[in-house]
Amino acid sequence: EPEFSFADHSHRRFNPLTDSWVLCSPHRAKRPWLGQVEEADDSLRPEHDPACFLCPGNERATGQRNDQYTSTYVFPNDYAAVHAEQPDCTSDALARVAGAHASSELFCVDSVRGRCSVVCFSPRHDLSIPELSTSGVAQIIRAWQQVYADHSADPAIAYVQVFENKGAAMGCSNPHPHAQVWALSAVPTEPASEIRALAAYRQRHAACMLCAYVEAELASAAAGDQSNRIVALNESFVALVPFWATWPFETMIVARSHVASITDLQEPHITRLAETMQTLTCRYDNLFRCSFPYSMGLHQAPTATHPDAALCHFHMHFYPPLLRSATVRKFLVGFEMMAEPQRDLTAEQAASRLRAQPSTHHKHSPS
Amino acid sequence: EPEFSFADHSHRRFNPLTDSWVLCSPHRAKRPWLGQVEEADDSLRPEHDPACFLCPGNERATGQRNDQYTSTYVFPNDYAAVHAEQPDCTSDALARVAGAHASSELFCVDSVRGRCSVVCFSPRHDLSIPELSTSGVAQIIRAWQQVYADHSADPAIAYVQVFENKGAAMGCSNPHPHAQVWALSAVPTEPASEIRALAAYRQRHAACMLCAYVEAELASAAAGDQSNRIVALNESFVALVPFWATWPFETMIVARSHVASITDLQEPHITRLAETMQTLTCRYDNLFRCSFPYSMGLHQAPTATHPDAALCHFHMHFYPPLLRSATVRKFLVGFEMMAEPQRDLTAEQAASRLRAQPSTHHKHSPS
Ligand SMILES: O=P(O)(O)O[C@H]1O[C@H](CO)[C@@H](O)[C@H](O)[C@H]1O
Ligand SMILES: O=P(O)(O)O[C@H]1O[C@H](CO)[C@@H](O)[C@H](O)[C@H]1O
Repeated sequence: EPEFSFADHSHRRFNPLTDSWVLCSPHRAKRPWLGQVEEADDSLRPEHDPACFLCPGNERATGQRNDQYTSTYVFPNDYAAVHAEQPDCTSDALARVAGAHASSELFCVDSVRGRCSVVCFSPRHDLSIPELSTSGVAQIIRAWQQVYADHSADPAIAYVQVFENKGAAMGCSNPHPHAQVWALSAVPTEPASEIRALAAYRQRHAACMLCAYVEAELASAAAGDQSNRIVALNESFVALVPFWATWPFETMIVARSHVASITDLQEPHITRLAETMQTLTCRYDNLFRCSFPYSMGLHQAPTATHPDAALCHFHMHFYPPLLRSATVRKFLVGFEMMAEPQRDLTAEQAASRLRAQPSTHHKHSPS
Repeated sequence: EPEFSFADHSHRRFNPLTDSWVLCSPHRAKRPWLGQVEEADDSLRPEHDPACFLCPGNERATGQRNDQYTSTYVFPNDYAAVHAEQPDCTSDALARVAGAHASSELFCVDSVRGRCSVVCFSPRHDLSIPELSTSGVAQIIRAWQQVYADHSADPAIAYVQVFENKGAAMGCSNPHPHAQVWALSAVPTEPASEIRALAAYRQRHAACMLCAYVEAELASAAAGDQSNRIVALNESFVALVPFWATWPFETMIVARSHVASITDLQEPHITRLAETMQTLTCRYDNLFRCSFPYSMGLHQAPTATHPDAALCHFHMHFYPPLLRSATVRKFLVGFEMMAEPQRDLTAEQAASRLRAQPSTHHKHSPS
């Protein structure tokens, strides 16, 4: 009888950060694809685009004009999802939408405030993270620190979500490389469930789940395991494909020491983080020789005086959609939406393919 | 001071089925869109496509040939995500991928078995649910009943997930209208969390959450509330935009009486369900005058002897991606993946726009 092999047989892996499962069917990548084909993002963009709402000196859709900025540039989002000021939600207002049953637990509403900003990585319309200089990426990290610190000073803000949508395939509405910050009066669902999981693990083990996880992954790499999941590593950070990854080439960047939030980072750790982000994203771009789309986000401690802030462990998630090539992506659709995420290659296969890529960008390599 | 209005002010709504929140920012639909534009699916497809793997009599990618079928046609998926037979997962196999820490709770694996099948709706390559006859849709429902009953007889199967990916935007890999069935040895994450929520609600209220929710929505509609969320209604089923909807035009079809699974439906309820599916999907197609893409799925009781089978309440979810037009969709990306789902119009606005559409298909209407 053949033996069970993770690369051949279906199995489910448990995600301890979100308390959910992923179905892994490594043989399924072989099926024929007659579905949607993306446009490969290998475009040569100009350094400055006069029609771009985000380039220095240009007018935005609202009529305001950007500064002639020369470095990372932060400004308020003109189409913010939340506002600092708005009326409180009343039971009358709720009754108007929910009807007579408004008081029931089935119509549960929370009014929410906050602020949204945009972080242009640099004046250059054409340079995303893997193509910027390391000091350019370090500037972005320092801008995120500043934004986080500013919001932390405001007791109305509970959580600061920094994220980047890169590429049209990830719903990016403007190609000028930028991140967004949505700072909210509530801790959103996803970080809230991670914090719950970290707290429960600490309760059981008197230790941090992510510290333990990083240690286990480093030990496996040090032992020379072919199946190790590490993609980039330096003294301060590790980039890896988590054992429970959902997206084909999903990765996390995790601080090697227990750092609660980005503001806890000083030099040389800021530069180490910039280097890790660059190695990882260069390998992404090199994999299919395109500007690799993804959604990326920072998870860290809630701001202000949250009781569980200290148990948070700073990390970043990268969720890239591409599966087979620069033009064929993974769709997390029917089964994934209704039942549970499903992936078509193992985390180990993804890590080994990324590790095999050069850590410098294909556009900069002599050929 | 202005009063709080659900149509103008940001708020979060709680999804009691999945125990999570949705951020609602109704003013955000106004932002400019320079992002990805889909191809509108308004194509005229042939009745039979000789190159289609699913049309009657054609050869599939594996070399097998489809029957000359004349009605709904069920056959095993050639690229199944799970198989009925495979070796058991051993601790040796786990140690090989997880390293020395394989025993830790951070590397938690479950081997999974099952069967996958394809349900071609009809021989016609060009007719999706809104365009079939009501008896044609009733045939599909009876095929789902048969598949569910077959799998229920197998003690190795715990859950039968029926779903449809419609349209290239939803990762459909073949345009011939069809659903899929993935029957698994485990109850997947999503139905498992719904069952947990239904059980907890029953504990607290000695009642079914979905029975109570349907009653509240019907009462609000009966009271003439302009903000009611109902899109289609007959004696047996209701289609509505749930108060906590995530996707712009997300809906649920819910049985009006407490029916645990699709096999509990007899006539006239089967025809009532077919009619509800048609009214809903005709309104979808009419909204942007295109073949409206979505992922759809059935949630019902786990099979075999699951202790919580009786508390399940049969319903269907429809998750359509379109937001602004036939070519501009909603992307649930950065903030949504990292923090929490966000929507740009209220559930009430979506319901009222769908209700305003004729219930017969635009292609069949005299113009
Ligand atoms: O089975 P298909 O249609 O080939 O594939 C589609 O549906 C599956 C189940 O939702 C997904 O896992 C795939 O990513 C998607 O492309
Ligand atoms: O803010 P943008 O880039 O206009 O919009 C993009 O990111 C947002 C936050 O993830 C999403 O809600 C939008 O659906 C997406 O298109």
